[in-house]
Amino acid sequence: MQEFTKFPTKTGRRSLSRSISQSSTDSYSSAASYTDSSDDEVSPREKQQTNSKGSSNFCVKNIKQAEFGRREIEIAEQDMSALISLRKRAQGEKPLAGAKIVGCTHITAQTALAKQERALPHPANSRDAPVLAGVAVFAWKGESEDDFWWCIDRCVNVDGWQANMILDDGGDLTHWVYKKYPSVFKKIRGIVEESVTGVHRLYQLSKAGKLCVPAMNVNDSVTKQKFDNLYCCRESILDGLKRTTDVMFGGKQVVVCGYGEVGKGCCAALKALGAIVYVTEIDPICALQACMDGFRVVKLSEVIRQVDVVITCTGNKNVVTREHLDRMKNSCIVCNMGHSNTEIDVTSLRMPELTWERVRSQVDHVIWPDGKRVVLLAEGRLLNLSCSTVPTFVLSITATTQALALIELYNAPEGRYKQDVYLLPKKMDEYVASLHLPSFDAHLTELTDDQAKYLGLNKNGPFKPNYYR
Amino acid sequence: MQEFTKFPTKTGRRSLSRSISQSSTDSYSSAASYTDSSDDEVSPREKQQTNSKGSSNFCVKNIKQAEFGRREIEIAEQDMSALISLRKRAQGEKPLAGAKIVGCTHITAQTALAKQERALPHPANSRDAPVLAGVAVFAWKGESEDDFWWCIDRCVNVDGWQANMILDDGGDLTHWVYKKYPSVFKKIRGIVEESVTGVHRLYQLSKAGKLCVPAMNVNDSVTKQKFDNLYCCRESILDGLKRTTDVMFGGKQVVVCGYGEVGKGCCAALKALGAIVYVTEIDPICALQACMDGFRVVKLSEVIRQVDVVITCTGNKNVVTREHLDRMKNSCIVCNMGHSNTEIDVTSLRMPELTWERVRSQVDHVIWPDGKRVVLLAEGRLLNLSCSTVPTFVLSITATTQALALIELYNAPEGRYKQDVYLLPKKMDEYVASLHLPSFDAHLTELTDDQAKYLGLNKNGPFKPNYYR
Amino acid sequence: MQEFTKFPTKTGRRSLSRSISQSSTDSYSSAASYTDSSDDEVSPREKQQTNSKGSSNFCVKNIKQAEFGRREIEIAEQDMSALISLRKRAQGEKPLAGAKIVGCTHITAQTALAKQERALPHPANSRDAPVLAGVAVFAWKGESEDDFWWCIDRCVNVDGWQANMILDDGGDLTHWVYKKYPSVFKKIRGIVEESVTGVHRLYQLSKAGKLCVPAMNVNDSVTKQKFDNLYCCRESILDGLKRTTDVMFGGKQVVVCGYGEVGKGCCAALKALGAIVYVTEIDPICALQACMDGFRVVKLSEVIRQVDVVITCTGNKNVVTREHLDRMKNSCIVCNMGHSNTEIDVTSLRMPELTWERVRSQVDHVIWPDGKRVVLLAEGRLLNLSCSTVPTFVLSITATTQALALIELYNAPEGRYKQDVYLLPKKMDEYVASLHLPSFDAHLTELTDDQAKYLGLNKNGPFKPNYYR
Amino acid sequence: MQEFTKFPTKTGRRSLSRSISQSSTDSYSSAASYTDSSDDEVSPREKQQTNSKGSSNFCVKNIKQAEFGRREIEIAEQDMSALISLRKRAQGEKPLAGAKIVGCTHITAQTALAKQERALPHPANSRDAPVLAGVAVFAWKGESEDDFWWCIDRCVNVDGWQANMILDDGGDLTHWVYKKYPSVFKKIRGIVEESVTGVHRLYQLSKAGKLCVPAMNVNDSVTKQKFDNLYCCRESILDGLKRTTDVMFGGKQVVVCGYGEVGKGCCAALKALGAIVYVTEIDPICALQACMDGFRVVKLSEVIRQVDVVITCTGNKNVVTREHLDRMKNSCIVCNMGHSNTEIDVTSLRMPELTWERVRSQVDHVIWPDGKRVVLLAEGRLLNLSCSTVPTFVLSITATTQALALIELYNAPEGRYKQDVYLLPKKMDEYVASLHLPSFDAHLTELTDDQAKYLGLNKNGPFKPNYYR
Repeated sequence: MQEFTKFPTKTGRRSLSRSISQSSTDSYSSAASYTDSSDDEVSPREKQQTNSKGSSNFCVKNIKQAEFGRREIEIAEQDMSALISLRKRAQGEKPLAGAKIVGCTHITAQTALAKQERALPHPANSRDAPVLAGVAVFAWKGESEDDFWWCIDRCVNVDGWQANMILDDGGDLTHWVYKKYPSVFKKIRGIVEESVTGVHRLYQLSKAGKLCVPAMNVNDSVTKQKFDNLYCCRESILDGLKRTTDVMFGGKQVVVCGYGEVGKGCCAALKALGAIVYVTEIDPICALQACMDGFRVVKLSEVIRQVDVVITCTGNKNVVTREHLDRMKNSCIVCNMGHSNTEIDVTSLRMPELTWERVRSQVDHVIWPDGKRVVLLAEGRLLNLSCSTVPTFVLSITATTQALALIELYNAPEGRYKQDVYLLPKKMDEYVASLHLPSFDAHLTELTDDQAKYLGLNKNGPFKPNYYR
Repeated sequence: MQEFTKFPTKTGRRSLSRSISQSSTDSYSSAASYTDSSDDEVSPREKQQTNSKGSSNFCVKNIKQAEFGRREIEIAEQDMSALISLRKRAQGEKPLAGAKIVGCTHITAQTALAKQERALPHPANSRDAPVLAGVAVFAWKGESEDDFWWCIDRCVNVDGWQANMILDDGGDLTHWVYKKYPSVFKKIRGIVEESVTGVHRLYQLSKAGKLCVPAMNVNDSVTKQKFDNLYCCRESILDGLKRTTDVMFGGKQVVVCGYGEVGKGCCAALKALGAIVYVTEIDPICALQACMDGFRVVKLSEVIRQVDVVITCTGNKNVVTREHLDRMKNSCIVCNMGHSNTEIDVTSLRMPELTWERVRSQVDHVIWPDGKRVVLLAEGRLLNLSCSTVPTFVLSITATTQALALIELYNAPEGRYKQDVYLLPKKMDEYVASLHLPSFDAHLTELTDDQAKYLGLNKNGPFKPNYYR
Repeated sequence: MQEFTKFPTKTGRRSLSRSISQSSTDSYSSAASYTDSSDDEVSPREKQQTNSKGSSNFCVKNIKQAEFGRREIEIAEQDMSALISLRKRAQGEKPLAGAKIVGCTHITAQTALAKQERALPHPANSRDAPVLAGVAVFAWKGESEDDFWWCIDRCVNVDGWQANMILDDGGDLTHWVYKKYPSVFKKIRGIVEESVTGVHRLYQLSKAGKLCVPAMNVNDSVTKQKFDNLYCCRESILDGLKRTTDVMFGGKQVVVCGYGEVGKGCCAALKALGAIVYVTEIDPICALQACMDGFRVVKLSEVIRQVDVVITCTGNKNVVTREHLDRMKNSCIVCNMGHSNTEIDVTSLRMPELTWERVRSQVDHVIWPDGKRVVLLAEGRLLNLSCSTVPTFVLSITATTQALALIELYNAPEGRYKQDVYLLPKKMDEYVASLHLPSFDAHLTELTDDQAKYLGLNKNGPFKPNYYR
Repeated sequence: MQEFTKFPTKTGRRSLSRSISQSSTDSYSSAASYTDSSDDEVSPREKQQTNSKGSSNFCVKNIKQAEFGRREIEIAEQDMSALISLRKRAQGEKPLAGAKIVGCTHITAQTALAKQERALPHPANSRDAPVLAGVAVFAWKGESEDDFWWCIDRCVNVDGWQANMILDDGGDLTHWVYKKYPSVFKKIRGIVEESVTGVHRLYQLSKAGKLCVPAMNVNDSVTKQKFDNLYCCRESILDGLKRTTDVMFGGKQVVVCGYGEVGKGCCAALKALGAIVYVTEIDPICALQACMDGFRVVKLSEVIRQVDVVITCTGNKNVVTREHLDRMKNSCIVCNMGHSNTEIDVTSLRMPELTWERVRSQVDHVIWPDGKRVVLLAEGRLLNLSCSTVPTFVLSITATTQALALIELYNAPEGRYKQDVYLLPKKMDEYVASLHLPSFDAHLTELTDDQAKYLGLNKNGPFKPNYYR
């Protein structure tokens, strides 16, 4: 008889997607993990867990850390006022009353808050809250593949409770329900998916005619895109490099592979702090933009001998090859800000002739026979997720977008959405943005009637065509 | 038996569209016009004109200035290598052999060059060239409304020559042919339109089912958009303000109305040179971007008393009202970088209580009864077109885009394009960009077969979906 | 019985000094001069000139242009409020009552205003004003060497009027008085010199024990230095390049020779507008600063083949040699922002094998036998003085500094200044700055008594030691 | 019979001075200390300590962490090539042979390396190395006041070894030797002092006629100043804020108190990342610079209600008062990047009506009765020293400067330095810079003979007058 929203987590295990909210290992946690690596511990699955309120409908690593977590949530709360104002509005309207949402996403202080917000419309939830008020959570740091699927299953397969909405990040949960619980799947009213990979899988399902549920691609909303990629990475590239290597940016030669939104953010930040930045690109339009923004566009091989830092932001694979790695100069830093963990060919470094030395958490020196060291960060996984934190504000954007998408799908009149994949309506995208303006004390200008008529627009938007970015 | 390409020009007369290539009065010319304003002259239409080669198939103001013009073209040529490389390729393939193009656009040194390039595939043209080799030109500075239509008509209505392609900028030529020469219109193989207004008119025609010819909207190609708006305005806002007012940017408080591509360009440049920039916006997504880029988003009335410069970039009307103008401080500069000349309510300043004083070409002091002066630039018309030049490189982008669109429409197999308005295919957009990379000595990276397969892309592009910007 | 302040001008003829206020040929004037070059005219010295008030105590080119000039002064006035507030204070205190100042500087709308301000404390001046109220001016555009000395002499050698203060810019006037009128020189109460060259000559005179008058080096005041060099050049490099070549900055490769204040300003502006900037330096400290600011430090020969623009800012000679010029690519732009006109070895270009072609005012194409063109601006003279304007605000800083130096020297108690060269006292330097803060609506914080004591400072300054920059 | 260089450390205990190299608590250590706070431990003074080579001439916290430290040193080594190249040169010349240096500074991986470098010229040192090769170290994290002086004394008071050079940071060691060991003090050949405070104390000693030893003020060398303040703080403000609060910079309103080098660095970095920055200043020259750099200059009270972050960089006291703190908005972050820990009046916050809550290491929430929280970082101590790391490169600059100063003082011919305080000779300052250029692959240009003569300079420098900054 539970109606919890459930959030098994996927701790970076398969970070195929760019979606920022997938993770963010807090740097303090990661530092902590550096010191507590010696604990030999029992799997959380084996433990009998009960929280302070007596519930055991959860499975986490260490419920005693709840207090620390609560403090982190308090800090986060200060920067998520948009979500809080959405909650306030929701408390009156209860737009998700009756919704039974099963979700799969990364858990951090900020997403915890986000989840809490969405949960609150359901009064029933607060009755029996294991870790967060009203939300059943199954997740821990260091889950194995098997653990992950166990957690997912525990969320879906609950006596007396059946999900009617899916909130997914990566598509694993959707896939699990689709495969294992087809009868549940058919009754789902909507899927909200936030990752590149998950969206891709949905489009494939749709193409194959097997998507029997309307789905909303929130990954491509303008607001979310800009924050996840441009604005977030502009800050996290600096943060990630600093926390791991303490490198000084001024005067460093850096090559950034890929000049999409992530690359643009990385380049802008590094240039602003005095680095000399080169760009590689395959797309001439992006390459031309890099030129106009003041970056030399080169092939990687042209600069590989001279650069101090190599950053991949391509979504492609084997962008940095063993050949490139062989030619790097001593103490060159290599890291990945892109979509997948295959951008750097890390496999090619796991060879007997090379010595790996872990010098700090997330920092390996790979040592060549002649003594040359390459500094590899996060073993080639996403730097911003492994070695930096995601600002609360960015998560607020994502969470608000997801919440609105859930509300839209759940409340849409029969027939508005067919069994297909949809972009978030422009107007909702604008609404997400508008909810975040007060935290900047930004004041929108309103169209006069006369101006609205002149422009052929509704005074409340949408202000741009759907394809406008 | 002429086969000239013809270019009547519309000298800023009705600059409804953002399209940069519509104009660009060279600052030296404008300065010159300041001194030669006393000439009372005969209309060019009345003059008997013959060029040095004996042709009189043209009508311009002063054919003696041809030499000065040729020098300007020489300067321009240095920055239009993309066009020149396209010409080289065209010389072999002659993709426009047989095309009889009638065009209407603004004439400057750079567009002259551009036109010349496109003309060259037609060997016949070079036989009898009035001003430029092989191109009949009908245009002069200071054309009246009536002159303008006379020029258009002279271009279309030619004995023994009938256009089969239209290259338009603003839609006037298209409209003229459609209305006056319906039989010519029906046989046109394609229309290439580069302005916002012209595109709008084409969509209306199409909606009304009256467009019997395929048309290509080149205004919205990514490359052209970025250059016309973001990159060009980033430079021309500085140039326009400097040439007219010699204002120092450092420390000045500036409000920019509108944070689209033009506004983004203006803000970035002014911020970089030490101005303090405020932004007004109606669209929350753009407003949020302004916040993230470090600009305070305000209502105009909040800052109007304190700012030194007001710049409109909205496409909207009456953005700066008489009420705002009344509250500006002494010597506040007001100018327009947007789409139309109605963004500043200049009409409201033409009142008996206010004195207008022309202090320089394009610079008026509007003086309030209490002595307060507002510095109005270009009488509220587009600053970048009136008081700055358009970099050759930007015109090269436009001209190359137009040329490729002409080639595509002219050579497309039967049925590829119906009687509708099309965006430039992504691949051609990318091709325009790639033609301009060599001038930056930029080196594209090529996908390996393996990578192309991984990404599901053709190695030669297009690299992004059509909606990607 | 005149008591005019006199200002012969040195129109860029010998711009050895960096001092910005030396010139600034207005671009509109230069454009005008382009068109009026055909006038064959009588030397102003030969003309009988009388102004509208009947005075003939002046010598200019065309007194009929006075109205145009007055308009330019009106524009300038709006940006020189510091000077105006100094004038207001001076009107009460009349700190220069009795001073008879002879000056030599460049004349523009802005310096005219500046001179006017300083003149106003002398009520006698306004009685008989030839061109500007109360100031006798001897200057015209295009003076010959001989004209220049004639003008200087006409200023010094006046019946019934003997200067007791010298305000110089370049040291020519000082030298003339010292050589030709030693008896006048001995009675001078102070010299205020604003140029590098003039200061250098004063130090030499002082070293040689021949300086019998206290002199003030206002060139090295912090405020003036920062504005003349860093802030002014940051804007004028863009302006100068744009007005002469309409070049687009985005993506251009530029090498800046010298990373002093001028070089720093040029580099910052160009980088901000998307150029890729290289720096050459001889001083390792400046070179290291360039590195930290994100510029590659190279030898000129390393990049000379690839750059689009070469800018000298060194104060050195033959920085760009014929060998470099030979290796530049086609249409490379070369210009000088430094101290002297010898930074580019222009002499080496005046050879029979090279063709010079004047394409615009201040723009020459130098053409190699193989057709390669190098675009030389202002024939290697200072770009910011020849092809750009100096912002009024910068001139206000200079004029205010000069005025305070005149006041200080004229009113200093016996013995404070010996026969030597002095830096402007720090407190006055700070005062110049503080007079300019209101135009930015900047609000200074005041020290509390407690804080002043803690810091060991007087609450009214000076706040920094004299050597602090 | 030891000849060790000795380095007691002062772990942030009394960070009166701006000198960056004073500290840098590594973030990983601080995170670690968060977790290991429960250890109740014996004072290092009580422990019997012996290192792996059997020596016990040291006193540290945990010699078992030597391996971790060695890794950190390895990382650091990669960025300190200047020091290494100086060492190479020193190995041949042995310029400090015979020098017996006692030093007091902060210990980090980087200074350890620096110390090691300087130690190496003394072959004797490597005989008996306790922690680092050849250097006796007395220091640990969390030293009490008493411990600190105990460590200092253990360094000075050594049987059979008497220091003849002092390398100090803060002046405590100098003071201790001066007071307790006057006979040792008299025989010292030189003091090298790197902190503002220490230099101040030396000048006082000198003024009082009690300085019987030549001292070198390395704090004010141009190279060191720029790196310690401008370049270092430009990065550490971002790093410090991020590591402690994960705040997103984009769109945040920040007020920076003080626009000296530190303030300039902070402002530039924050502006570049999209923050809106206000500046407060007492000095009109610095205020005017802030204006020209695009910052509004305000009084703190004008913006205190609206800002998200308050940063002090003044060197002054009580810049942020309780009154300001009372008016801040909820979750405003307050931190100090200045010289002393009195810039924020933290004492005024230790009142019964306010609740302090430690939310993370170095982060306190101070909670007002109405629930408002102010986020205070590092309890008002220097953020860059407490919550960020100092880049190795900056420490290399400092260490190289110190080493050259030691060499200069130790080898200067009799009489070059009297009993006074000296600035590092310009030429050495330039040498420090030149040693660091290779790590940026920067190539200096050399003057030709002709140019050197023209400029009146020696080809090898110094290139600027001593007062040039």
